[in-house]
Amino acid sequence: MINQLVANIRKTKAPIVVGLDPMLDYVPKHVQDKAFQEFGETLEGAAEAIWQFNKAIVDGTYDLIPAVKPQIAMYEQFGLPGLGAFKKTVDYCKEKGLVVIGDVKRGDIGSTSAAYAIAHLGHVQVGSKSCLPFGEDFATVNPYLGSDGINPFIKVCREEKKGIFVLVKTSNPSSGEIQDQPVDGRPLYELVGEKVAAWGDELMGDEYSYVGAVVGATYPEMGKVLRKIMPKAYILVPGYGAQGGKGKDLAHFFNEDGLGAIVNSSRGIIAAYKQEKYGKYGEEGFAEASRAAVEDMAADIIEALNLR
Amino acid sequence: MINQLVANIRKTKAPIVVGLDPMLDYVPKHVQDKAFQEFGETLEGAAEAIWQFNKAIVDGTYDLIPAVKPQIAMYEQFGLPGLGAFKKTVDYCKEKGLVVIGDVKRGDIGSTSAAYAIAHLGHVQVGSKSCLPFGEDFATVNPYLGSDGINPFIKVCREEKKGIFVLVKTSNPSSGEIQDQPVDGRPLYELVGEKVAAWGDELMGDEYSYVGAVVGATYPEMGKVLRKIMPKAYILVPGYGAQGGKGKDLAHFFNEDGLGAIVNSSRGIIAAYKQEKYGKYGEEGFAEASRAAVEDMAADIIEALNLR
Repeated sequence: MINQLVANIRKTKAPIVVGLDPMLDYVPKHVQDKAFQEFGETLEGAAEAIWQFNKAIVDGTYDLIPAVKPQIAMYEQFGLPGLGAFKKTVDYCKEKGLVVIGDVKRGDIGSTSAAYAIAHLGHVQVGSKSCLPFGEDFATVNPYLGSDGINPFIKVCREEKKGIFVLVKTSNPSSGEIQDQPVDGRPLYELVGEKVAAWGDELMGDEYSYVGAVVGATYPEMGKVLRKIMPKAYILVPGYGAQGGKGKDLAHFFNEDGLGAIVNSSRGIIAAYKQEKYGKYGEEGFAEASRAAVEDMAADIIEALNLR
Repeated sequence: MINQLVANIRKTKAPIVVGLDPMLDYVPKHVQDKAFQEFGETLEGAAEAIWQFNKAIVDGTYDLIPAVKPQIAMYEQFGLPGLGAFKKTVDYCKEKGLVVIGDVKRGDIGSTSAAYAIAHLGHVQVGSKSCLPFGEDFATVNPYLGSDGINPFIKVCREEKKGIFVLVKTSNPSSGEIQDQPVDGRPLYELVGEKVAAWGDELMGDEYSYVGAVVGATYPEMGKVLRKIMPKAYILVPGYGAQGGKGKDLAHFFNEDGLGAIVNSSRGIIAAYKQEKYGKYGEEGFAEASRAAVEDMAADIIEALNLR
């Protein structure tokens, strides 16, 4: 699947991923109203609203982008119906040829970690049958529990040709409280980066590893260091746009080949119609606004890569 | 809810929690067969099997125990039907007066962390209505992302009178890879323990804080230190039984008042019928075997507390 991700990025010439993180506030009123008319102001109604919202955005952008990253928390908050919308979104994006990165940030140990890996990347055995639970292509994983948490994911990735992105340095202001703590004179995230590189060596695709890393756009200098520590890891970069990261901050996350990183934007794309810049599309044209925002984001990043 | 947990522990005199982590392997064949006859060898069939298994174990033990801890990964691996069984289990346990600790180990930032908090501990606003997603009483939370990940949980806990257990030192062999790294001459988990104490000061119940900690039974010496660092935090202790922890290892996790810790056992209780010791109950008597295992575990821990 890492080879598929690289192929999709080469084809679209857009190293970006659209974060399908649908807060109900982002969903235009006419979409919400239609869903609530059918299902009421219920979890089912909310789930229908975010699914229809996602579908329109995917329809409006899928030919321009290599991948999507649905954030499962935004679905989980609407309970079982919400997770039904998550599953529909995953399936629909895969039908459209997109690589689906499940932003699930799961992390546990042993058989529990294996269960999460199966839930999101694998098949589960039920009696004599093998069944598909959620079926994303990649999952994000938390490293706090050490190798016992990661190895079960790597096992499933090997069997299913799927991949993971391990949290190394997250984009939020307080990420340093734990991740920057000095261990033998250098920050903990560097040590985690070295582990990612080692885990990744065990499971290489053609050019890059099935084991990638999450490093926030908001920390470009750390991205530069981590890029060198993990040369074969794809870096998933959140924090572009709404969180403050800009194209020029991102150049160092990429390798010389122009590959090696994929930059996420969520609100900046899916709620683009709320920005003054894309105001002309109006609420009704929210998916067209998202398409324009994708084009602008891709151009911003490609320009930054060309200037370095 | 921390007051309710303490009250339940006082009433049952059993500082234990039953981990409802139903691997399909644990479910006796007759329960599986019945579920598969009705729903086929499908995700629905697996979900029905684990739900019926859980229900029997809860019926067999609920009057002896203060709390249960369903591990969501074991349900998530069976996709949407599996999560339906999780929700049914949560609801049923609450009907029986049990405190429900959702072992979800979620961790993200800002609005995403808020969405997880709402999913598991809160209510979600849909139009003019407030809806209940999963409705556990406590959730386990990963601290790797720092305060940005914890504060949204604390906000929901304050509103809903719910609680969290933050991962501090996990029970697995490789937990030290990150958690034991020396920061200014002492291990990272101590620093996380201090943060738990500080977060907990903001949200106190009558005697203990709504913010607790996870510390593995497999590391008793570290438990002793962490007990002092976080005197008001309830400690959720996994790793008893199958993972190697014994009653005598656990005394230091408790305060002088005999409170302050709750010890989890999963396999040791829910799959007790597979142990030679409880073999007399047979597969058909799996719930009675679980009841006997609960009684033995409570006695083991109370004895250890009395001996100190």
